[in-house]
Amino acid sequence: MGVEERREQLIAVALELFSVRSPDEVSIDDIASAAGISRPLVYHYFPGKHSLYEAAVRRAADELTARLREPHTGPLSVRLLRVMSRYFDFVADHGPGFSALLRGGATVGSKQANAVVDDVRQAAYEQVLAHLRIDAPGPRLALVVRSWVGLAETTALTWLDGRTMPRADLEVQLVHGFLALAAVTAADDEETAEVIRRIIANEPADGLIGHLVTTLLGLLPANGGPLLVPRDAPPGRPPGTPEEAATAAAPTAP
Amino acid sequence: MGVEERREQLIAVALELFSVRSPDEVSIDDIASAAGISRPLVYHYFPGKHSLYEAAVRRAADELTARLREPHTGPLSVRLLRVMSRYFDFVADHGPGFSALLRGGATVGSKQANAVVDDVRQAAYEQVLAHLRIDAPGPRLALVVRSWVGLAETTALTWLDGRTMPRADLEVQLVHGFLALAAVTAADDEETAEVIRRIIANEPADGLIGHLVTTLLGLLPANGGPLLVPRDAPPGRPPGTPEEAATAAAPTAP
Repeated sequence: MGVEERREQLIAVALELFSVRSPDEVSIDDIASAAGISRPLVYHYFPGKHSLYEAAVRRAADELTARLREPHTGPLSVRLLRVMSRYFDFVADHGPGFSALLRGGATVGSKQANAVVDDVRQAAYEQVLAHLRIDAPGPRLALVVRSWVGLAETTALTWLDGRTMPRADLEVQLVHGFLALAAVTAADDEETAEVIRRIIANEPADGLIGHLVTTLLGLLPANGGPLLVPRDAPPGRPPGTPEEAATAAAPTAP
Repeated sequence: MGVEERREQLIAVALELFSVRSPDEVSIDDIASAAGISRPLVYHYFPGKHSLYEAAVRRAADELTARLREPHTGPLSVRLLRVMSRYFDFVADHGPGFSALLRGGATVGSKQANAVVDDVRQAAYEQVLAHLRIDAPGPRLALVVRSWVGLAETTALTWLDGRTMPRADLEVQLVHGFLALAAVTAADDEETAEVIRRIIANEPADGLIGHLVTTLLGLLPANGGPLLVPRDAPPGRPPGTPEEAATAAAPTAP
């Protein structure tokens, strides 16, 4: 085997081992034996476990980034759902390595590996913005998208920890979660509100978002209850600043 | 000074330095000089920078956990807003150390320090459940609360990175975010739906949640638009499984 070929083989073998056991529990001996070569020969291609681990993380990151790509056609909810499905495929394939890396539990190569993770987050962030047709988001819309990327990670890590919920449900819930995070920001940010209006305009009535909106309206008290101000009230903006709203809502007794 | 007193002093000094510079950029010499003692004397109390860093992280974690405590009276939105305000006080006080620890960028003591971070997340999770008056949540409600704790972290880290948004707005938005994440789960989970109904029943019409609901309804197309199924449709459940809904929503051309 040539040098590049052998390096590729070792990265693939390492990645496979990290996908079934935490990186902390995989030794250079394990990798050598799985690759059918001697321990000194592994060191010939990688100076140590750190550098092999980093190369494996970089390979996994490239794979994940490729899986996040999605054509810009059809309703956003359908696109996001397909991306979430491929994301959970990846998470399912790389469980222990994914957990160890994101939980920061791996004792190997943390600083460089974390930089690679940040690159994937950045790629995911840029992908979502491209789907929203936004080039330079304001800070609030940027936060919505970054928060959602974080939400997907938290959800995936929680799923891996016992796999007690069907992943298909979590994929749908993450699509809903995106809309929900955008919606609460849209309440105070016109750029995000405009994005939501554009998304909703392209969603079919019998799609994921239509059902979500219908179901959420069903959670409100009958006839709106005391919470709802009449719909002919001035639209769009709650009266006063958030601070005033909080003060108004605070109980009078301490 | 006695041994305990001296250790306490060194922890306090270290924590103060980590609050203005990343832990990677603080040396034992810096700590010794800030404490007005010699470098060997620091080593007399702590075997190395690792152990002093871990002690400082543990101290900060105790402080944060204490700040998360909130009496169980008044509307939930007001309680959560007060907790978020104290959370952002803490984040503002410990910026560089907080970022380095949560971004996994600190080269010192990561494994033990991460375990301490996980303990704080767990404490926050249990606090929120106690406010919801839930002892043993189902997996979906548990995920809502864990996701929200993660959302607060992402938001705080994004805020620290340039402080481009007023923190008061982000505190309000996190309270909204909790309701939003719970609401999308409530669409498919009766336990969470019941929690939302209880929350809403205790919220004043002119409070944070009332304004949020009113504003969100304002985002919907006029007269409901094509998205809205009539309100007398069977309540609570979208027809079919999420997969069917996704298939129904998929565009017919590839």
